[in-house]
Amino acid sequence: MSDFDCRYDAYRHRAEDALRKHLSKAGEPWQDDQIPSMLAEAMRYSLFAGGKRLRPVMLLAAFGMPEEPLNDALPFAAAIEMIHTYSLIHDDLPAMDNDDMRRGKKTSHKIFGEGMAILAGDALLNRAFELMAESSAERAQLAMAEIARLAGPRGMIGGQAADLAMENSAPDMNMVRYIQRHKTSDLFIAAIKAGSILAGKDEYAIAAAEQYALHYGLAFQITDDLLDIEGFQGVFGKSTGKDAKAGKMTWPAVAGVAQARRDAEKETALALEASAALGNSADFFAALAQMVLGRVK
Amino acid sequence: MSDFDCRYDAYRHRAEDALRKHLSKAGEPWQDDQIPSMLAEAMRYSLFAGGKRLRPVMLLAAFGMPEEPLNDALPFAAAIEMIHTYSLIHDDLPAMDNDDMRRGKKTSHKIFGEGMAILAGDALLNRAFELMAESSAERAQLAMAEIARLAGPRGMIGGQAADLAMENSAPDMNMVRYIQRHKTSDLFIAAIKAGSILAGKDEYAIAAAEQYALHYGLAFQITDDLLDIEGFQGVFGKSTGKDAKAGKMTWPAVAGVAQARRDAEKETALALEASAALGNSADFFAALAQMVLGRVK
Repeated sequence: MSDFDCRYDAYRHRAEDALRKHLSKAGEPWQDDQIPSMLAEAMRYSLFAGGKRLRPVMLLAAFGMPEEPLNDALPFAAAIEMIHTYSLIHDDLPAMDNDDMRRGKKTSHKIFGEGMAILAGDALLNRAFELMAESSAERAQLAMAEIARLAGPRGMIGGQAADLAMENSAPDMNMVRYIQRHKTSDLFIAAIKAGSILAGKDEYAIAAAEQYALHYGLAFQITDDLLDIEGFQGVFGKSTGKDAKAGKMTWPAVAGVAQARRDAEKETALALEASAALGNSADFFAALAQMVLGRVK
Repeated sequence: MSDFDCRYDAYRHRAEDALRKHLSKAGEPWQDDQIPSMLAEAMRYSLFAGGKRLRPVMLLAAFGMPEEPLNDALPFAAAIEMIHTYSLIHDDLPAMDNDDMRRGKKTSHKIFGEGMAILAGDALLNRAFELMAESSAERAQLAMAEIARLAGPRGMIGGQAADLAMENSAPDMNMVRYIQRHKTSDLFIAAIKAGSILAGKDEYAIAAAEQYALHYGLAFQITDDLLDIEGFQGVFGKSTGKDAKAGKMTWPAVAGVAQARRDAEKETALALEASAALGNSADFFAALAQMVLGRVK
């Protein structure tokens, strides 16, 4: 096992433990302080559907080494994964991307119905902020404000809304960049920035973390869109060729496949450049960036 | 104009100003730090659809007198109304209550489509937490944690989920009480508790505020359900008789109309009792409680 794999797994296990710890037990709904069993089941179903935990791993890696006590960062790691999961549940709804499958499993609304899927998403978003607000870590409020801004209408939701509103519009590179920056990069930025803020990093390190996550996210989304075109359903557990059918304004749709591949390489190189300033996590983040391109090679 | 009306209007205007101030301007989506115009429009449409601003008024009244500087409480007043508004947008969706009209206007998804309505709700919830996290008020984080808990899966969303899951189930008084407490009372509790916490009130006053809001919320929801049966579409701007058609487990459906009226009176009396401990806001909250019953008299 490489150093990288070992460190990734260590962070990932810490994140899994935090998620398990912070998701309320289901119970009979008329007992107080318990949550209706179907809601709890729906929250758990999507949260433990086999994600790679990329965002909480990034948050923890930006915070400290895996052998250090990461306690101050753990609720934030759980929270960022809850926010990511809520966005997937809502994205998969028939009124949005209308996906029946995700990570090789049926999507939330296919199992629990649309109404409960909407509520499960809402519940995960609320629970994320509850967890962060309960933190007694120094700078907790600052980290929370960053996450809220980057996940909200000026961040991820802005990207999702533009993505939805621009279906079947004329190709526009500025628009694609806006959509991908906000839809995808912003939550990576939130993760790495929150980890850095909680660790008390200086402005210079925080700016480098933001640059890294921005370019990482763009490379990530471009390769995701290339995979949707080139098709690896078996690998990704979700259906492919959907973007074109939905008239989505993706990077390869606007720039062409060959240019998109070159842009993914360029964005990866920019992420690698920024990773150098990430202190004793520089190697880890460099290795992470290099893996993105591997998905389409 | 009565003292009560005058004070209500003063709080309401402060809340309106705070909402206007804190809702980002719409712009071309590819300009940074701006949000896609359709998303901004959808957020504003529901937020300025003529609500009574009951929850922010309660939060401000629990915080201080209208002539005092209320600055520390204003972002929280705006936030609680954003949370209320997001819950209405999602509640009105076809997969939930399927309402076409709200406050005499078309509901969000009828104007902007279901996908954008889901995102507008998500955006308002995020923006609410962003606003609160940016506060520099003492005890801001504590107030935010209370609001998050009471709005989340152990609070309002728990009530909404039970409401949805229990459609067409056998009548059960414990269940109705659970649903109404969480679906309706919890956000009133959040408002009054957050205002009290921000003002630095002692434990005794905070407990009284919680009791008041619990019983106020139950009286409020019982009369709402009575109105749905007895029908005042002109007054409420929303369609009536829907609960019975949807097989909703409402208080009058379980206890009968006559008993529900008596229970609304009982809950109002309990709210009045609790209001006595609310210091120089006691009269204001007492008058507010007395108005609830007026709706079905």
